[in-house]
Amino acid sequence: MVDVQQHDVVIGIDLGGTKALAGAVGADNAIIGQAKISTRKKRDPETLLAAVAACARSAVENAGVPFASVQAVGIGVPGPIDPETGTVGNAPNLGWLNVPVKAILERELGLPVAVGNDVRVATLGEHRLGAGQGKSRVVTFFVGTGIGGGLVVDGKLYAGAHNAAGEIGHTFVAPGGPRCGAGHSGCLEAMASRTAIQRDILNAVKQGKKTALTHIVAGDLANMKSSDLAEALAQDDKVTKRVLKRAAEYLGYGLASAVNLLDPDIIILGGGVVEALGETFINWAIKVARPNYICEAARDTPIVGAALGDDAGMLGAALLAREGTTGDGASGR
Amino acid sequence: MVDVQQHDVVIGIDLGGTKALAGAVGADNAIIGQAKISTRKKRDPETLLAAVAACARSAVENAGVPFASVQAVGIGVPGPIDPETGTVGNAPNLGWLNVPVKAILERELGLPVAVGNDVRVATLGEHRLGAGQGKSRVVTFFVGTGIGGGLVVDGKLYAGAHNAAGEIGHTFVAPGGPRCGAGHSGCLEAMASRTAIQRDILNAVKQGKKTALTHIVAGDLANMKSSDLAEALAQDDKVTKRVLKRAAEYLGYGLASAVNLLDPDIIILGGGVVEALGETFINWAIKVARPNYICEAARDTPIVGAALGDDAGMLGAALLAREGTTGDGASGR
Repeated sequence: MVDVQQHDVVIGIDLGGTKALAGAVGADNAIIGQAKISTRKKRDPETLLAAVAACARSAVENAGVPFASVQAVGIGVPGPIDPETGTVGNAPNLGWLNVPVKAILERELGLPVAVGNDVRVATLGEHRLGAGQGKSRVVTFFVGTGIGGGLVVDGKLYAGAHNAAGEIGHTFVAPGGPRCGAGHSGCLEAMASRTAIQRDILNAVKQGKKTALTHIVAGDLANMKSSDLAEALAQDDKVTKRVLKRAAEYLGYGLASAVNLLDPDIIILGGGVVEALGETFINWAIKVARPNYICEAARDTPIVGAALGDDAGMLGAALLAREGTTGDGASGR
Repeated sequence: MVDVQQHDVVIGIDLGGTKALAGAVGADNAIIGQAKISTRKKRDPETLLAAVAACARSAVENAGVPFASVQAVGIGVPGPIDPETGTVGNAPNLGWLNVPVKAILERELGLPVAVGNDVRVATLGEHRLGAGQGKSRVVTFFVGTGIGGGLVVDGKLYAGAHNAAGEIGHTFVAPGGPRCGAGHSGCLEAMASRTAIQRDILNAVKQGKKTALTHIVAGDLANMKSSDLAEALAQDDKVTKRVLKRAAEYLGYGLASAVNLLDPDIIILGGGVVEALGETFINWAIKVARPNYICEAARDTPIVGAALGDDAGMLGAALLAREGTTGDGASGR
């Protein structure tokens, strides 16, 4: 048995469209045990959440603490959440609509469950335990299959009137341009997500351009991963570099908009694309952003990579478990 | 003498690039006397602020209360403000750089003076006394020569890390497009301000298009006012309508971005262009914005015209006078 005080363990779960990560987290916010399952195969909510509950139990087992010592569960889910009922609305990455995640998991685990949006929960993790520690005003951009974000104001996650704030991927940088999965033309997600990058590379290939990616992904260009893009960039592949620079440029305009509108203490960039491409990609974006600030003093606003990597969601969900809410929720309505 | 309790009068001043409005404001936030001077002729800060101080004294005189009953002064200035020192940085509309407005006016008037950014002060006015009363989360767009804005979060004006938040006119909707006065390509101000509208109409005329505006402004197309645009629209002038619709479209994308990112309780639209064109212009923008919301429940977020019109800045400045700050200022840095 690990020496963990009873009553001091919570479970944090990061539920995504490709995997679910569960962590048993101690009072010092250290992960003392974890487990992982694939969520690629689409399953009905009851079946998938039963598997997620089993995964949570495994994480506790791996931590070497009795399940009875677990006090609460937090989970980040990719969709809009009703914070009162813990129901997720439309979650296309899971193929779900209006699933009472809180009710199902509470029944499965016999513990209080708090549910939050995955990206907002990861923002909470980065703010409290990662790159945003001690900052009053934080903006995050998570660039992956889509682009999500979160806002911290006055040291608290900002939820908005409908618990829907932070959709930085659906701010408009090129109206009339290509569409995102939700059908919006020229939003940041449609211009700078991995989906957008893949679309632009496929278009270049269709136009007869050669790219090292064809070899890297063994011909399966429709399923390129962020790590494949990093590999192509390391090989100085022209098509990849041009498309990534263009995505970084739009991201840069998004950063400048965030600085001018929100004047934050720090901007944190995470997600698969940023994790894989690192400083190169971040610096391309910053180079576009900086000349577009309206306040001269904002020039030094730090724009940094996320510190918790893949653990941000799990650790944020553990904080959610302890505190029961991601922010001001429906207050003041 | 008007029956106003002594110790209950403050002065609110709205200092702009064309005029300064001063109001003597009672405890119930009613304007009990006002005065106005032109600021079109550029003067050195000392001279102009002496004239502004005289204007403030006239407002108190017009209210019929003794100047000794005035407790404090608030002023909104078109530029970035250091809230500690009350100094305005770069204020191009006044031709000023680093002017200690607070120090000069305190010497001129012998009263404590609080200084804020003009648009943020007007946002404070609309939030507390206008269309945003009782709302916790408010976003304003003021569309005039430029485009300014302000954010209310948790019932308080949100200042940002450098007291620079709210620059919604410098969020990017068409990177690569035309430039604003600050040299930024494709920001909302460059696409939807009166300056942008005038530019597009002049370009159409250069290309040989006929417009009723030529007659309305008696040939002086370089100095069209918002009321001229309203007149041309009333005459169903094709060029004007096309250009205004395009500006409203970009404004609509700006509204959708604000809804998706900030999920406010209400959005308030003000400024000369909106005041002159009214519901027609607002509805064009809303029609573009609504299909681009990511959160279905946000569909009903009210988007309304400002309620205080030209008085928003003066009344907001009076609140500033009473409370000494526009928001969280430099707190939590």
